[in-house]
Amino acid sequence: MRAAILCIGTELSTNLVKDSNAEFLRNKLLDKGILTEYTMFVPDDKEAIIQALRFLIQKEELRLVVVSGGLGPTEDDITREAVAETLKRELVFLPQAWEEIRKIYFSIRKKEPPENNKKQALIPQGALMLQNRVGTAPGFLIQEGDKKIFVIPGVPQEVEFFWHYIDEQISNPQPSFFKTETLKLCAIGESELASQLQDFLVDLPSGISPAFIPRSGEIWFYLYAFRNPLPEENQKVQQILESIKQRFKDRLFSTYADTLEEAVGQLLREHRLTIATAESCTGGLLANRITNVPGSSTYFKRGYVVYSNQSKADDLNVPLAVIHRHGAVSEEVASLLAQNVAQRAGSDIGVGITGIAGPGGGSELKPVGLVYIGISWGKHLEVHRYQFHGARTTIKFRTTQEALSQLFLLLSKRCLDNGE
Amino acid sequence: MRAAILCIGTELSTNLVKDSNAEFLRNKLLDKGILTEYTMFVPDDKEAIIQALRFLIQKEELRLVVVSGGLGPTEDDITREAVAETLKRELVFLPQAWEEIRKIYFSIRKKEPPENNKKQALIPQGALMLQNRVGTAPGFLIQEGDKKIFVIPGVPQEVEFFWHYIDEQISNPQPSFFKTETLKLCAIGESELASQLQDFLVDLPSGISPAFIPRSGEIWFYLYAFRNPLPEENQKVQQILESIKQRFKDRLFSTYADTLEEAVGQLLREHRLTIATAESCTGGLLANRITNVPGSSTYFKRGYVVYSNQSKADDLNVPLAVIHRHGAVSEEVASLLAQNVAQRAGSDIGVGITGIAGPGGGSELKPVGLVYIGISWGKHLEVHRYQFHGARTTIKFRTTQEALSQLFLLLSKRCLDNGE
Repeated sequence: MRAAILCIGTELSTNLVKDSNAEFLRNKLLDKGILTEYTMFVPDDKEAIIQALRFLIQKEELRLVVVSGGLGPTEDDITREAVAETLKRELVFLPQAWEEIRKIYFSIRKKEPPENNKKQALIPQGALMLQNRVGTAPGFLIQEGDKKIFVIPGVPQEVEFFWHYIDEQISNPQPSFFKTETLKLCAIGESELASQLQDFLVDLPSGISPAFIPRSGEIWFYLYAFRNPLPEENQKVQQILESIKQRFKDRLFSTYADTLEEAVGQLLREHRLTIATAESCTGGLLANRITNVPGSSTYFKRGYVVYSNQSKADDLNVPLAVIHRHGAVSEEVASLLAQNVAQRAGSDIGVGITGIAGPGGGSELKPVGLVYIGISWGKHLEVHRYQFHGARTTIKFRTTQEALSQLFLLLSKRCLDNGE
Repeated sequence: MRAAILCIGTELSTNLVKDSNAEFLRNKLLDKGILTEYTMFVPDDKEAIIQALRFLIQKEELRLVVVSGGLGPTEDDITREAVAETLKRELVFLPQAWEEIRKIYFSIRKKEPPENNKKQALIPQGALMLQNRVGTAPGFLIQEGDKKIFVIPGVPQEVEFFWHYIDEQISNPQPSFFKTETLKLCAIGESELASQLQDFLVDLPSGISPAFIPRSGEIWFYLYAFRNPLPEENQKVQQILESIKQRFKDRLFSTYADTLEEAVGQLLREHRLTIATAESCTGGLLANRITNVPGSSTYFKRGYVVYSNQSKADDLNVPLAVIHRHGAVSEEVASLLAQNVAQRAGSDIGVGITGIAGPGGGSELKPVGLVYIGISWGKHLEVHRYQFHGARTTIKFRTTQEALSQLFLLLSKRCLDNGE
């Protein structure tokens, strides 16, 4: 069983309001194994609503269409009329609906509703009225051939309230979507991962596909199908996932947490390690991401945003002579920042970052996007060199992604080496 | 002129990833007076893509269709094939595109791309290749009758990069939506602004409406209509906007720049002032936001993330005795952080932030969300106390919003006082 969602409202099409209704409904449907094949947004424009709804009701594979929004009492709310016109049904006045509207209006505003609320009691002929307990506009359900068309208000709390009507009508759906857990990896590229996974994926049961989602320095991976797998297929899928997890365990951070900063934090906490940061081009973003994790004060000691050369010298003892000889953006400065910040903060691990975030400040030898990341841990010191592309904030973010990736890799490898 | 957006990706239809592409494109189109009539989301399902695209290209009123997503190198990326099939065009291999892919791949990963990247060089016959400078997948533009169909990748930074190709092709569109400039204000609440604006808005021409958009500590305001206003209406609208700008000029940061950090940066630069930050609960977010602005190194000297008490003492001379007497989250500590960071950095202005971002660490007397922000400027010292609500990252962000708002207010008032 597949579904479609049609959200109506000029405020959505003009970004005045962010959608949460389609997101809510898709999640609820997915929980029942139902894939939302089409999600559509149109403004309060009668012709657009009619065209979109006509498109959806012509799709044979859809058994469920949820239309949300445009049922208010004001002139711009025209969903009722557009639905009736699309389905060639008359709008009829339902005295029972009007009674309910008066009751709920009175309970909220302590007075009788104005005349224009009366149009909310109009419902297409043959539709089943769905009573609204959190707002004035009733919804309705139309059975059109083998399709159920729900028309409900667009206020998010009201959408949540109306879900139970939809839920009741789809008690035993044929699942149209299956998805495994999402594996999130770092410190590996999409195509490299894909080519390394080929061997694992040859045995994939037919109709079950891999999904690769690159997310600026992370790759998300899962297996999915547009149907429910058979028990033996499911077993095979789980086996494949397990071998992939085993193979990439040092880069698989989602076994620890949802985000890289959480996964790094989890490893630091588990092994009672502390960290401090010295950032130049990322300007505090790394410290900010690390401290986004609740409880990070147990392992994050302090951070320095050493933007000027003077601050690198004053706070972290990077000799100005070294900066003049090698440049502020250099392997030497990244190393010193990493080592000295750990020493000054008294932390186990120190991270030093220096680079050119752009758009200015680049040269032929040291172009915008050139970044050095140093990681110091006791006697261990590593420095990575990157050449990123894109806008200033992209380069800053990618830099922190790589810093966190390398931290994760280092920590997870050490833990694996220790036989943990 | 009206447009449509088709976003492709199972990750979107299954809520794994939140859309930002449709939102970005709709905004850009709106800025040019183009209403997005249809926004559609479909999974990586060939038949669904074909059906959705066929629907859109049959709509006469649409002159522009932007298709985004599904151009990656892996098996689940089938947009290329689906578009070619819908438009009944062959896919042809473009050696020039392959060269570009190899170059960008090599510049990022320092090696040759694997074979599966080759399919990214396939483009429908007659299409114009659009070179990608921030990722491997090229986009393409197909002219189909009087419609322009752009097919671009789905990675948000790449969508932002590809916008300029679209922009170039729609130089003089017939407007289907009218919107004034957006006025962005800080340090004022939505309902306070709305009630203060009532007097200005009584003369608004009919059909032209005000929009108030509260954006965590900022209020955005504009006037809009679904038609182009007549010249005399437009004149009236501009008059109203001007009086509003005049009335709220000390809180109106969008006359300087798009974001609060840019506006503050603009004022600092104009008046040759420098700044330094000392952050506890915001963990570097303020420094990060200030340094997101290109050229900020001219006015941002350095930042400290003084997460531990010891670092507050070591780096910024906050006596541990003061911390023990008043608590790390106190007016006294915020003041000392602000004053001492300016002194240590040798900057004109110092900002000191201390608070409880949660979810742990709160008490009855000092609950989660309690924040002190100190601003020191020569002999001037101000400390603001806030009680925020919400998740850890929300509290961190709101704190930096207020710090930037108070900086803006202070700087703009001083400038206005100086008769500038």
